[in-house]
Amino acid sequence: MALAKTMEPLLQGNSAIRKMFELGQEMAEKYGKENVYDFSLGNPVAPVPYEVKNAIISLLENQDPHEIHGYMKNAGYDEVREQIARHLKRRFELPYEKEQILLCAGAAGGLNVLMRCLLDEEDEVLCFAPYFTEYNAYVSHYKGKLTVVPIKEDNFSLDIAMADRLIRRKTKAVILNNPNNPSGVVYKEEELKALAEMLREAEERVGHPIYLICDEPYRELVYDDRIVPFMPGLYHNSIYLYSFSKTLSIPGERIGYLAIGAGVEDGEKLMRAATIAGRTLGFVNAPSLFQKVISECLEVKVDVGFYDRNRRLLYTELTEMGFSCLPPEGAFYLLMKSPLEDTEGFQKMAEEEHIIMVPTDGFGLPGYFRLSYCIPFESIESSLPAFRALWEKVKHRKETDAEQKDSDVKNQKIL
Amino acid sequence: MALAKTMEPLLQGNSAIRKMFELGQEMAEKYGKENVYDFSLGNPVAPVPYEVKNAIISLLENQDPHEIHGYMKNAGYDEVREQIARHLKRRFELPYEKEQILLCAGAAGGLNVLMRCLLDEEDEVLCFAPYFTEYNAYVSHYKGKLTVVPIKEDNFSLDIAMADRLIRRKTKAVILNNPNNPSGVVYKEEELKALAEMLREAEERVGHPIYLICDEPYRELVYDDRIVPFMPGLYHNSIYLYSFSKTLSIPGERIGYLAIGAGVEDGEKLMRAATIAGRTLGFVNAPSLFQKVISECLEVKVDVGFYDRNRRLLYTELTEMGFSCLPPEGAFYLLMKSPLEDTEGFQKMAEEEHIIMVPTDGFGLPGYFRLSYCIPFESIESSLPAFRALWEKVKHRKETDAEQKDSDVKNQKIL
Repeated sequence: MALAKTMEPLLQGNSAIRKMFELGQEMAEKYGKENVYDFSLGNPVAPVPYEVKNAIISLLENQDPHEIHGYMKNAGYDEVREQIARHLKRRFELPYEKEQILLCAGAAGGLNVLMRCLLDEEDEVLCFAPYFTEYNAYVSHYKGKLTVVPIKEDNFSLDIAMADRLIRRKTKAVILNNPNNPSGVVYKEEELKALAEMLREAEERVGHPIYLICDEPYRELVYDDRIVPFMPGLYHNSIYLYSFSKTLSIPGERIGYLAIGAGVEDGEKLMRAATIAGRTLGFVNAPSLFQKVISECLEVKVDVGFYDRNRRLLYTELTEMGFSCLPPEGAFYLLMKSPLEDTEGFQKMAEEEHIIMVPTDGFGLPGYFRLSYCIPFESIESSLPAFRALWEKVKHRKETDAEQKDSDVKNQKIL
Repeated sequence: MALAKTMEPLLQGNSAIRKMFELGQEMAEKYGKENVYDFSLGNPVAPVPYEVKNAIISLLENQDPHEIHGYMKNAGYDEVREQIARHLKRRFELPYEKEQILLCAGAAGGLNVLMRCLLDEEDEVLCFAPYFTEYNAYVSHYKGKLTVVPIKEDNFSLDIAMADRLIRRKTKAVILNNPNNPSGVVYKEEELKALAEMLREAEERVGHPIYLICDEPYRELVYDDRIVPFMPGLYHNSIYLYSFSKTLSIPGERIGYLAIGAGVEDGEKLMRAATIAGRTLGFVNAPSLFQKVISECLEVKVDVGFYDRNRRLLYTELTEMGFSCLPPEGAFYLLMKSPLEDTEGFQKMAEEEHIIMVPTDGFGLPGYFRLSYCIPFESIESSLPAFRALWEKVKHRKETDAEQKDSDVKNQKIL
């Protein structure tokens, strides 16, 4: 009675990620941190680039404290917006202007602002499985509905035909997370072109814009010289959403931006709405000092080699042992298929070996686990014996299951 | 069609404060900044205490960047929560524990989190006029309803009997802003005790908790040795909401906290809900560096004398000229009664003298204007001739109106 009824599902659900993280913490206390292999949390650990500290100190030395810590326009400091617009223009050759940039409290903040702007009750947002589990909550706050396009399990590419079938008059937006959390997949230009083509046709069909929200906090974390195509260049109604959490290893600071380019239908109105939504949802503005910090660090990023070493080691070793994993192309997640049909049983086995992974049921993909390899290299090295022991147990369980099956079959024959 | 229908009222309304601020900016460009007397925006200008800069630099020098800028528990750093709990315990002699503290993105962020936790569709929140105009939006995001208790205009005290009549089964919470924006009133202990008494009885009547949300960003800005009573000591279901924006002149940084004490019914559950709501509304956590900064500055505040000088000068001069103003006791706002029944006409007159004030219609109090005196002392000094000219015009207009009335009366008699 005291709390809102609509809070109950959120209280029940909470986040599988946080739950596993807390389990990891408990186990670390019980068995010692070095004896627990915690792959639960996407907490960036690549060193924070020194430019971040330098920028803070230089700002403190050279600018008026009121200018650094005070109110500015709700959309952000004009000069920061200008810098970001120029950066995008230079990098992606699209004519962004400062009026099209809104500083926001990370990608999560930006997504909530957009959901508030777009969704009336029962309106729908489409996303592709596997997807970041919190999208459900973002949409539910404003009484919208998240429609999930199932994954094509053969190659983890976007099922565009299915997405097309799921788009209805109520569909206001599509969220695309590229590189993808939790799969580590980077969607390719050809499938993104096909997506754009489909969306253009769907817009004709439903008679209103379908905004493609490009949720790209992992854009800079890609490997093997992969390139993340820039969707606003392919689809006019793309809203670009970026966060500096991973690029600069500063997720606690809550800083990112929205870019709503000239091609976006009702773009000016949407920008005005997002500014007001941001203020009235209680963000007011993105944290002021860090607006200025990131504007000094637009060309800076963490050493991606840091994650790449982890990625190679973990993927190579696990697949050699026998685990079936999706080759990670971006972000810092590795997707492992449960080697047993009994996913929960497998998870318990892993926990017995002190391995903490996040089951991806909540990400719209049952039967898989997400391993965040944003942990020290040494932790991955020292986890390998535990994975080997786990694989032995899996093999043994498989053999027992097979024998059981055989004997079941025989018994059936005798009967 | 593209945007949510529920965004339209927000787009139409926007904020009267921001509108006047923008008018001020435009006029400053046209006539020169020194020739415009802008009392529109509550932007703290007292010098940022040097402890803020010192804390930042010391943190950067002595702590691991991941610890400063990384993820922590969604509720905030444990040691910061501990510091705040201790601070509250020491100052108000209530046994707060760190588990009862949630770091949030300023008071606006905290209020949104609470609204999300408490409100189902049609649920009501009560507040007392005059009230911070954005409460309307905070409540509307979650489809709740803001019920406003009108002001007792004789002395601007809380109309508790009226509040009592307006509390219904749907009423989940009451917001109390003390010191008050826009009136500058500090509510006194006796009326707060009466409020507590009334709420206890109302809880009995409606059969569920009525949370009193104590929105106190201006707590430290009080004058003439006034004391702001601490409501959680007077009413068990008080939720204390604090922001450092005004106390440290850092409103751009978005940092504050919620304290849900041991006496609060379902307090633990509410704290859990608030943590999850904070994460899923996209705040995730309060900005990390500034969590640590404020924990080093819990005993620090701006020089209140800075605002007090402004307050005395403005109030004394305006009342001497003939304007009717409420004696400001806290915050940095002065409430002026429109000297003309034609409030809009008076506002236009003021603008002709380049004086920008915010009409308080949107604050639930028609016929008044809010003057923010958080501007340089010199600006107030140089605005005085404009106010004198304004008063002359008012007098002239009153005389003309009176003559007109007389002649109307005479004409009526002749007819």
